[in-house]
Amino acid sequence: MMSRRYLSAPAAGLAMLTAAFSAAPAPADMLVDNVDGITLGEEGEVIRFVALRVDDDGKVAEIFERGDDLPRDVDYRLDGEGRTMAPGFIDSHLHVMGIGFGALTLDLSQTASLDEALAAIARFAEENPSRPWILGGGWNQEQWGLGRFPTAAELDAVVPDRPVYLTRVDGHAGWANSRALERAAITAKTADPDGGRIERLANGQPSGVFVDAAETLVTRHIPAPRPAERDLALSEAQKLLHAQGVTAAADMGTSIEDWQAYRRAGDAGTLTLRIMAYAGGVEAMDIIAGSNPTPWLYDDRLRLNGVKLYLDGALGSRGAWLKEPYADDADNTGLPLLDPAQLRNRMSRAAIGNFQLAIHAIGDAANAEVLSAVRELQETYTGDRRWRVEHAQVVDPSELSQFGELGLIASMQPVHQTSDRVMAEARLGPQRLDGAYAWRTIAENGATLALGSDAPVERPDPLTGMAVAISRVDDAGEPFGGWRPDETIERERAFAGYTMNGAYAGFAEGRFGRLLPGERADFVLLDVDPLMANERNLRDAEVAETWVGGKLVYRRDSQ
Amino acid sequence: MMSRRYLSAPAAGLAMLTAAFSAAPAPADMLVDNVDGITLGEEGEVIRFVALRVDDDGKVAEIFERGDDLPRDVDYRLDGEGRTMAPGFIDSHLHVMGIGFGALTLDLSQTASLDEALAAIARFAEENPSRPWILGGGWNQEQWGLGRFPTAAELDAVVPDRPVYLTRVDGHAGWANSRALERAAITAKTADPDGGRIERLANGQPSGVFVDAAETLVTRHIPAPRPAERDLALSEAQKLLHAQGVTAAADMGTSIEDWQAYRRAGDAGTLTLRIMAYAGGVEAMDIIAGSNPTPWLYDDRLRLNGVKLYLDGALGSRGAWLKEPYADDADNTGLPLLDPAQLRNRMSRAAIGNFQLAIHAIGDAANAEVLSAVRELQETYTGDRRWRVEHAQVVDPSELSQFGELGLIASMQPVHQTSDRVMAEARLGPQRLDGAYAWRTIAENGATLALGSDAPVERPDPLTGMAVAISRVDDAGEPFGGWRPDETIERERAFAGYTMNGAYAGFAEGRFGRLLPGERADFVLLDVDPLMANERNLRDAEVAETWVGGKLVYRRDSQ
Repeated sequence: MMSRRYLSAPAAGLAMLTAAFSAAPAPADMLVDNVDGITLGEEGEVIRFVALRVDDDGKVAEIFERGDDLPRDVDYRLDGEGRTMAPGFIDSHLHVMGIGFGALTLDLSQTASLDEALAAIARFAEENPSRPWILGGGWNQEQWGLGRFPTAAELDAVVPDRPVYLTRVDGHAGWANSRALERAAITAKTADPDGGRIERLANGQPSGVFVDAAETLVTRHIPAPRPAERDLALSEAQKLLHAQGVTAAADMGTSIEDWQAYRRAGDAGTLTLRIMAYAGGVEAMDIIAGSNPTPWLYDDRLRLNGVKLYLDGALGSRGAWLKEPYADDADNTGLPLLDPAQLRNRMSRAAIGNFQLAIHAIGDAANAEVLSAVRELQETYTGDRRWRVEHAQVVDPSELSQFGELGLIASMQPVHQTSDRVMAEARLGPQRLDGAYAWRTIAENGATLALGSDAPVERPDPLTGMAVAISRVDDAGEPFGGWRPDETIERERAFAGYTMNGAYAGFAEGRFGRLLPGERADFVLLDVDPLMANERNLRDAEVAETWVGGKLVYRRDSQ
Repeated sequence: MMSRRYLSAPAAGLAMLTAAFSAAPAPADMLVDNVDGITLGEEGEVIRFVALRVDDDGKVAEIFERGDDLPRDVDYRLDGEGRTMAPGFIDSHLHVMGIGFGALTLDLSQTASLDEALAAIARFAEENPSRPWILGGGWNQEQWGLGRFPTAAELDAVVPDRPVYLTRVDGHAGWANSRALERAAITAKTADPDGGRIERLANGQPSGVFVDAAETLVTRHIPAPRPAERDLALSEAQKLLHAQGVTAAADMGTSIEDWQAYRRAGDAGTLTLRIMAYAGGVEAMDIIAGSNPTPWLYDDRLRLNGVKLYLDGALGSRGAWLKEPYADDADNTGLPLLDPAQLRNRMSRAAIGNFQLAIHAIGDAANAEVLSAVRELQETYTGDRRWRVEHAQVVDPSELSQFGELGLIASMQPVHQTSDRVMAEARLGPQRLDGAYAWRTIAENGATLALGSDAPVERPDPLTGMAVAISRVDDAGEPFGGWRPDETIERERAFAGYTMNGAYAGFAEGRFGRLLPGERADFVLLDVDPLMANERNLRDAEVAETWVGGKLVYRRDSQ
């Protein structure tokens, strides 16, 4: 009998978790066996395996197929208990610090009444005595059956000592207490700003609710987070993402403050998420990275790849830039946020330093403009550029093929389709839906489809993303048979979108995204096989364990 | 006969220099022999040795005294050719990027006439075709025998196509060409600002020279350096410092842009200077480091230690804060730049995160205020704080002893004494000179004397600094016997001030600053022995080689 040292949960799991979050060296070599292993190969083909050896640098040393002899002399053996082992998921579009700060603020979205909300606010304030402001969101007076907005006085009754500011579920209004009004010096004399409204009591005093542009009257007084809060937010974001099986992510709109938090974690050995960062504009790009993208730092855990630019807004607020007016707003086509010269100037400024471009384009006019700009710029900026279009939600059907012709990365978020469906039909009318959320057509035209969540806008859950990608139905199974089901994609394509394509989209192929020898041993253990499971099973599945660079970063049973 | 692989200059030297600036691993172990080695020991005692072995991590493995058997089986042997081997010098107060940018701009200080200056300007513009502005300084119309200020028209004749701005030798005036005036939209109608004067021609047009506060009318239009220029400036600064034998420095007033340039070099493996950084204010401290000092990064090459605060100005411009009025300006005592509450607030904000304080204090009132503030704050912020006073130029003699009582670091710059002598006598009158540049008294009272240059204000030359420290005479040997020679210090104390005390002042003791086993092998080879040479020999001496972490970073013969 050979000696086998199995790790048994939860005791060993906790010990490993501790190790994973310290700066300790990676464990010595390890064999993970008794798994149904899946990965995509060099050519994107599915490879199945039964065991995987991790070397002492935390990289994949070997994978073993059924019938192979397994090595006997390894330092650790991990029993996969028959689970599916897959590459750690890559989310190609999210906001790391937004996820983290969201986790640190109060979520009122599940409250059913004003009283319930006030109790939650009081409890949160009590549990967070050192927070100078109480911040949160998700409230909805309709859900409470209140029939009116809540008031500052109601908030004062539960938090009299500190300013409070809570955003409405749609982000279009905020609810403040009297301390917040004092800080902002808002009185009965304060006028409504353009594009905004201060809700008022019968006596003309501000009631405590601020709509649209009036929100900034208060929000500009909320102090910027301290570095320690940023560090905490990053830590929370990592935990949340690892619990969803996410081991790497493209961070869209990185600021210098965000970047410094990532570096602090990297320097301290607590950076467990692989972050492919896209600076929030060219100034942020300059100060973060200098003249060129940074090297891969911290054993492939951090790189400033390029820059995120916004070309338009979103459909919901009719900010997406369309070729023809909105179906539900005949005078409005939305607006570009950059004129053609500004867009090309910023793209050139990035491309000259070999920074990658990631351009937010939602409306068909915005997507057409990106296609045109890339076509022009690639004459000058040749080579392997991997121009990214973020969202690519509504594309003129006649232009869909250009995504492939130009070799673009289409960075798309499946769950936006189910969340947006009813709104998108209203905004666009039936004519333009052929080019909306057109995953299959874009992929079959030869573009690289990199999938993500846009978290914290949606939950960063790749299994649900895959469920939607293969079905185009929402959590309630609606609409039956899927919305415009021609644009569903195959399981393998969805899986690639959350693994190897996400790596390619961030110039990380060969580093992570597949479980092939030489790549980082980033993997998940799952109770479902994403290449076999149906939509419902994928949506309901949970991640059992998440490993990054051969170190455990999440175990369900130890939470 | 054993095999000895000597490195022969210059061919091997150039190869080594190339290696030193690449990210290549440190060489394998090396023996440096045939040297007169000197270092201070654990207790500050002088240790002499004849050979030193460097391990393959670039640290000192062993030192060998006369009569010891030398190891035979090393990968490299370096023949010291009988030179003095000493720890690399530590400059405890300079401005790394200021040195670098100074090296990238035009120096007119050696020009003897306007024509000579114009020729130099034309040449510099031609040699630097891609610089958007031509910048420089050092001109002096008195030295040129001109009898008037130069004009924009004279500059236009040599640089018509780009803006030019050149600072007068004293920094109190600037000379611009017409392109610069256009950029700044300065016309005959532009009024003189408070505290400044626009020199004008007979017809009222600006002549091209801007005095004092009027300088900012132009300088605010000079674009901030691009990241590539910052990288180049850092590279130039490293070269200049290594040529002076400086291997480590306290960088005073680090900005986030500076820091990012240091990190880029660290990430790329081209950071050869050890930088102990002090952020330029608490906001810069926050964004650079977060809640606490950074770890030592890049094998002890970079750390954000703390924050630099300015409590007053300088003697020359009568900005130093004095207890009694200036001897040559009876109504003026100078001014504190921070009131007592502001000073203590910033000190607390830093100290609460264990950041080190480095407070600029020149006048006796400023020094008294720092002493008082440290005395108060150290009740709350206990432990090993190493409060630093930068310059400590003029101290009330009755308060000198407090530097020792409070365990302060006195960070002083010997060459300032010779540069300032005549001016300081005029500003202070005879009464206050007892506490001026009082190196010996401060050191004998038990404070730690850490010496530096304040480069680019003075040349970053530690050997000249030691020459002045032991003599208090200037380059011309004046005044005979030294100015207030009671305050000269012994050679050993001056040597400590540029080696081990500089390390202690930056929390780097045990890492570098001495050539003891386990410390980084940072060393210089010199033609003089700083513990034996006289003032003249020290001043005239040149550094033959400079090594950092066991890698050659400067060799005189290969320049």
